[in-house]
Amino acid sequence: MTLRIGVVGGGQLARMMIAPAVELGVDLRVLAEDEGMSAALAATAVGDYRDADVVLAFARDVDVITFDHEHVPQDVLTALVDAGVAVRPGPSALRHAQDKIVMRTRLAELGMPQPDWAAVSDAVQLQQFLDDHGGRAVVKTPRGGYDGKGVRVVSLATEADDWFAALAEDGHGGELLVEELVDFRRELAQQVARRPSGEVRTYPVVETVQRDGVCAEVIAPAPRAGERLTAVTAALGVAIAEGLGVEGMLAVELFETTDDRVLVNELAMRPHNSGHWSQDGAVTGQFEQHLRAVLDLPLGDTSPRAPWSAMVNILGGPTSGTLEDRFAAAMDDCPEVKIHTYGKAPRPGRKVGHVNATGDDLDDVVYRARAAASFFQD
Amino acid sequence: MTLRIGVVGGGQLARMMIAPAVELGVDLRVLAEDEGMSAALAATAVGDYRDADVVLAFARDVDVITFDHEHVPQDVLTALVDAGVAVRPGPSALRHAQDKIVMRTRLAELGMPQPDWAAVSDAVQLQQFLDDHGGRAVVKTPRGGYDGKGVRVVSLATEADDWFAALAEDGHGGELLVEELVDFRRELAQQVARRPSGEVRTYPVVETVQRDGVCAEVIAPAPRAGERLTAVTAALGVAIAEGLGVEGMLAVELFETTDDRVLVNELAMRPHNSGHWSQDGAVTGQFEQHLRAVLDLPLGDTSPRAPWSAMVNILGGPTSGTLEDRFAAAMDDCPEVKIHTYGKAPRPGRKVGHVNATGDDLDDVVYRARAAASFFQD
Repeated sequence: MTLRIGVVGGGQLARMMIAPAVELGVDLRVLAEDEGMSAALAATAVGDYRDADVVLAFARDVDVITFDHEHVPQDVLTALVDAGVAVRPGPSALRHAQDKIVMRTRLAELGMPQPDWAAVSDAVQLQQFLDDHGGRAVVKTPRGGYDGKGVRVVSLATEADDWFAALAEDGHGGELLVEELVDFRRELAQQVARRPSGEVRTYPVVETVQRDGVCAEVIAPAPRAGERLTAVTAALGVAIAEGLGVEGMLAVELFETTDDRVLVNELAMRPHNSGHWSQDGAVTGQFEQHLRAVLDLPLGDTSPRAPWSAMVNILGGPTSGTLEDRFAAAMDDCPEVKIHTYGKAPRPGRKVGHVNATGDDLDDVVYRARAAASFFQD
Repeated sequence: MTLRIGVVGGGQLARMMIAPAVELGVDLRVLAEDEGMSAALAATAVGDYRDADVVLAFARDVDVITFDHEHVPQDVLTALVDAGVAVRPGPSALRHAQDKIVMRTRLAELGMPQPDWAAVSDAVQLQQFLDDHGGRAVVKTPRGGYDGKGVRVVSLATEADDWFAALAEDGHGGELLVEELVDFRRELAQQVARRPSGEVRTYPVVETVQRDGVCAEVIAPAPRAGERLTAVTAALGVAIAEGLGVEGMLAVELFETTDDRVLVNELAMRPHNSGHWSQDGAVTGQFEQHLRAVLDLPLGDTSPRAPWSAMVNILGGPTSGTLEDRFAAAMDDCPEVKIHTYGKAPRPGRKVGHVNATGDDLDDVVYRARAAASFFQD
């Protein structure tokens, strides 16, 4: 029987599942937030993912539900499970990607290396943490943050007053997460795929370069990642995937500290920007792998297809016209680079596409990916 | 502006254009023969490609028309051109892929190496050709043949009587094509991409293995293809693409004779089964390349991504159930092989999918592709 996957959310991650779904012959159906979203081609429904009735109706005709993002509320997720729908990753795993305090608490239980952290419910507690950590720290709203949103470096507890006030207002008596400011050498990411029946596969650890809190570039594998680092991050990824019961793709964002430790920064339970290189750089790209994992099919080979891959995001795009207007120049200059666009109108800071380059020489691969991406920006 | 391509025909070739179209951000629209065709996901219209009104209406909202097959009649093609539609490849090029006598005549004018051939209008002429060529020859209907259909090896002119009778009946006073039976060592294929502004790129020559007149396997590049053979087939492909004014992908099917000549067997002006390996084995797959070519965008790098690639067709499929029922076994055994299915119900002899394998060792690559394909057949 044709396998049917329902994806909640119509963004670029759902869009990039379309290509492997077509090739495998998987019937991919998307519940999009609006008409004309990135994944519109596969959209079979448009509706509010916070409405259990909408999501339940969408789920009726598929074998498994998965996600373009982690924002589907727990009550909707549990309603799906109660109705007998296969939800992958499931609500109890997704909680850890939805609430950073839940994640920190669980990772601590699992003995995972993390920055020092605390859940603080008022400015007094926050100030105490600041005093204990050299007077500066990172404050995060536990829920809803992404791409640098909901993250603030503070040196005075009063700098989080607005967030405390908002928490008080929402009536849930919530807390903010505060984390030590990690002295890191660079950021890494570890991709892991896990299927319900237990099979796990890891991708090579990659280096991610963030600009203004947004992923700008990824190099795979992470340069100068020796056997030890590679083994440590893979083991860490597997431990988290298993410990949290992840089904599908997991991305573990990591700090490599100046004193050679690896600390968990963030988690994402879906294909992730730090894994886009794998579309062209690995035998099995993360989008195909996610489909296989949520269908509980055997996972694909995660080996790199070339010694080096580089991914460079197209952020914002050209100030006039569309990305396609720049195709001729980019393709002419970089015939070997793979261009991926998301069907989104250019807008400052918006992720509207990315390019992947692969090859034998690291500097050359990075140079070519940057060159190709530059054609899509002013 | 978003680039829009209209594909006439909803088969697997149109289907396999979807993945690169999504990634590039090209709006691919398909005029399908029926509901539920291979390329149904991108079908925006269903209708008869022999009806000029249907095709003209479909063409109204796209930038360029291209094809899943070569069967669109010349009068429909010229109606498109007359209406100002960009048609790639155009009617004057496509004629050579639609009529084998037109092809043979033009290739002769271009000085291309071919089997001895003649256009014969009755059994007397056919018998004369047989007498001149050792008593056996290949007779072909000039139009409408594919995958071994419309091709017959004869040793008596009367064996083509039914075809002569059919020609007489259709009132066009047509001829049959007769060709010498070539003593060949193996069959090869040369893929070439050409865009309207003139840029041409060749793929490495491949070896194709036919069974019962149908492509069964492809190895890329062709084993033991030295520099000379590679240069000869590439030059031949370019000469034909330029001589015939091809726009898009061209496949030149070739015989490598036992006395080391290369002769043109057939042409296809579209992505072709002999080029499917390039989806996973080349930097730019033939489907992406076709999109770039018909949009007159700079062509992509055609370099192989691995020393060897093998493509094995899934012919017929399992006698019970669907291809997807076999995914678990195939993926478990061959995690590194890429599976492509066409969304077609299994039926004896039908091409329902293919698998691609890549790697450093030829024997291993072929073995793995065959092994993976075998899981999809009884």
